[in-house]
Amino acid sequence: MGIIVQKYGGTSVADTERLKNVANRIVKTKERGNAVVVVVSALGGTTDELLKMAYEITPTPPERELDMLLATGEQVSIALLSMAINALGYDAISFTGPQVGILTDTTHTKAKIMDIRTERILDEIKKGRIVIVAGFQGVTVDQDITTLGRGGSDTTAVALAARLKADVCEICTDVDGVYTADPWLVPDARKLPVISYEEMLELAASGAKVLQLRAVEYGRNYGVLIHVRSSFSDEAGTLVREVDQMMERAIISGVACDIGEAKVTIRDVPDRPGIAAKVFKALADANINVDMIIQNVSEKGFTDISFTVVKEDLTRVGRALESIVEELKARGPYYDENIAKVSLVGAGMKTHPGVAADMFSALAEENINIQMISTSSIKISCVVDAKEVERAVKAVHKKFNLGKEAVICEGV
Amino acid sequence: MGIIVQKYGGTSVADTERLKNVANRIVKTKERGNAVVVVVSALGGTTDELLKMAYEITPTPPERELDMLLATGEQVSIALLSMAINALGYDAISFTGPQVGILTDTTHTKAKIMDIRTERILDEIKKGRIVIVAGFQGVTVDQDITTLGRGGSDTTAVALAARLKADVCEICTDVDGVYTADPWLVPDARKLPVISYEEMLELAASGAKVLQLRAVEYGRNYGVLIHVRSSFSDEAGTLVREVDQMMERAIISGVACDIGEAKVTIRDVPDRPGIAAKVFKALADANINVDMIIQNVSEKGFTDISFTVVKEDLTRVGRALESIVEELKARGPYYDENIAKVSLVGAGMKTHPGVAADMFSALAEENINIQMISTSSIKISCVVDAKEVERAVKAVHKKFNLGKEAVICEGV
Repeated sequence: MGIIVQKYGGTSVADTERLKNVANRIVKTKERGNAVVVVVSALGGTTDELLKMAYEITPTPPERELDMLLATGEQVSIALLSMAINALGYDAISFTGPQVGILTDTTHTKAKIMDIRTERILDEIKKGRIVIVAGFQGVTVDQDITTLGRGGSDTTAVALAARLKADVCEICTDVDGVYTADPWLVPDARKLPVISYEEMLELAASGAKVLQLRAVEYGRNYGVLIHVRSSFSDEAGTLVREVDQMMERAIISGVACDIGEAKVTIRDVPDRPGIAAKVFKALADANINVDMIIQNVSEKGFTDISFTVVKEDLTRVGRALESIVEELKARGPYYDENIAKVSLVGAGMKTHPGVAADMFSALAEENINIQMISTSSIKISCVVDAKEVERAVKAVHKKFNLGKEAVICEGV
Repeated sequence: MGIIVQKYGGTSVADTERLKNVANRIVKTKERGNAVVVVVSALGGTTDELLKMAYEITPTPPERELDMLLATGEQVSIALLSMAINALGYDAISFTGPQVGILTDTTHTKAKIMDIRTERILDEIKKGRIVIVAGFQGVTVDQDITTLGRGGSDTTAVALAARLKADVCEICTDVDGVYTADPWLVPDARKLPVISYEEMLELAASGAKVLQLRAVEYGRNYGVLIHVRSSFSDEAGTLVREVDQMMERAIISGVACDIGEAKVTIRDVPDRPGIAAKVFKALADANINVDMIIQNVSEKGFTDISFTVVKEDLTRVGRALESIVEELKARGPYYDENIAKVSLVGAGMKTHPGVAADMFSALAEENINIQMISTSSIKISCVVDAKEVERAVKAVHKKFNLGKEAVICEGV
């Protein structure tokens, strides 16, 4: 008997009615002869309500206590989901992250999973039970409750699937798969039947919200077959898996965009060795993740450095760079929050020269100015003005014929 | 340095403002040089909201999952309270029942505490921290979460105080002590400075809601000094302690009433040995607690049996007795939900004959009919019509001069 891990997010369990639907869906999977382990997020909206209470008390709650607080969200949903399944006449049992032994490091609010003890889950499976596990949470060796950070339930599900050697990890969500672009932005965006881990990683890193970056990394590292599909239908979604298992492969997988970043620029920086290192070490010490970095050509011994960070980190960027900017007698930092990053992702671009040029000309034809560019072997990202993001995504999507009517594949 | 255990109930932490007040109060206790361990209930109203969700899903949620669900209520309040104390610049750390090792049996929804592992609490106290513990919850040896039933937080607090050998267990609540009667019912009711465990037990069993029966039992068994006092003032409340430590002792401690019970009567029961045993064994097997029992004098070989149970159990009583009533060719059961139990409690009545007679005449003078009577060595209870309960309590309270103006004591 194969094990299927299913993960349901907050919108799939937003209220008790939806919870009952999810329970029905789980029971059907069990009826098909599978052992089912379910990972569930907090009911939609709960986490925000809990955070609101915390911030009513103090603007700087200790992170350990924040984790203690937030972990209750998933504990409520596992209990209710288990009740709903039991009400259908099936045997279900719920577990918190600590109870099933999801051991993490001690980095509260964004802990990393170190190990999972699966004995209890396997015991319950043997008894024929459906096992419900709280996503997003774990426990340190000192028994302190931790949470895994944004999208942590995806990571819980994929990590459990890896450890249980599950046949598949189904990420059941409010969209029915991974698309060539956000269907809300590009109405003729096409659902991808398969996508490689690498491409999914780049898409997730580029702003596609359908699957969490860390979950994809975990999946790639342990070879977990991930199936992104709708919570509300039985249709097949998108499989995320090893590229060499794929029968055919598109040059381009999709276009993603991200409006959550801001651009920071420091002007008149002395163009000497070690200066960039100094700047980015200060940011790293402040635990700030930098995404794109550009250093312009030097003019008369001075240069400009630009980079992007998530908007929430801007205040901390200012604090981290204050003394360095002064020391270097540079100007800034200057901030621009009205930017958007448009990314084109595709494993095929490695062997297809000219993809970058085509992307730039798509934007040029729409008269959209490119402010920053960065590339990897399977991704090209351009920063544009935020108000042009929709036109930019549509233009790039069209340029590469990614729409429903034009499926371009090549044999592998 | 002495340890003080303080317990705060749901109304004391009904919202974030009140939580901050409680935090201030805890910090003051710490400032006086005490080690402080705090037990806290769920924010007022939370438990009802959680139950509402559960019953939206199924009328019969499994008790294990109900405990999983309800335990989140206290987890929210410990996290928020710890944040509030940290915000005042003091070091606090919160723990769930399972985390501090409150080991219970496996009777979900009304588990009994078997043991408490205090190592982690003592460690944190040594570090100078204020320790916040979730009331009402524990964990089985299999790591399943349990709850202790109604008023369980009182029990957690007293049990912790016993185990930690605390100087005192302060039950901080929305009333400022134990009164000779409910002050809402009897405006001149008097606050008792001290009361014995035995009398407090009888009062709690008779409907006084200020302190939970099981907590008092625990306190008596382990000699924990309990101080019932207001969450909102620094005034002394009522001490609950060993009777032989008391300097003076009232004949009567107070009058309590309970409108939560119903009377059940079976008529024309054959008056043979073993019949009562049969009836009450059936009720015990259905896990129904019977309070008062009366069997009338037999007429022509048949008798009537009446007893009281909490109203919520009435449906189950019917089911449990159905076949027996038929088998005995008796009539009933008949139910009367419009009753109230008025109880007079006082350790002094053991040595003062005539207390019962005085109570009955107080009711007779008000023309209140007594339906049932039961007595213990320190308590007399009378069942009267529900609509006469207020007059009955006032009359008895007055008869024994329990009001503010008339304190009757005797040396011990």
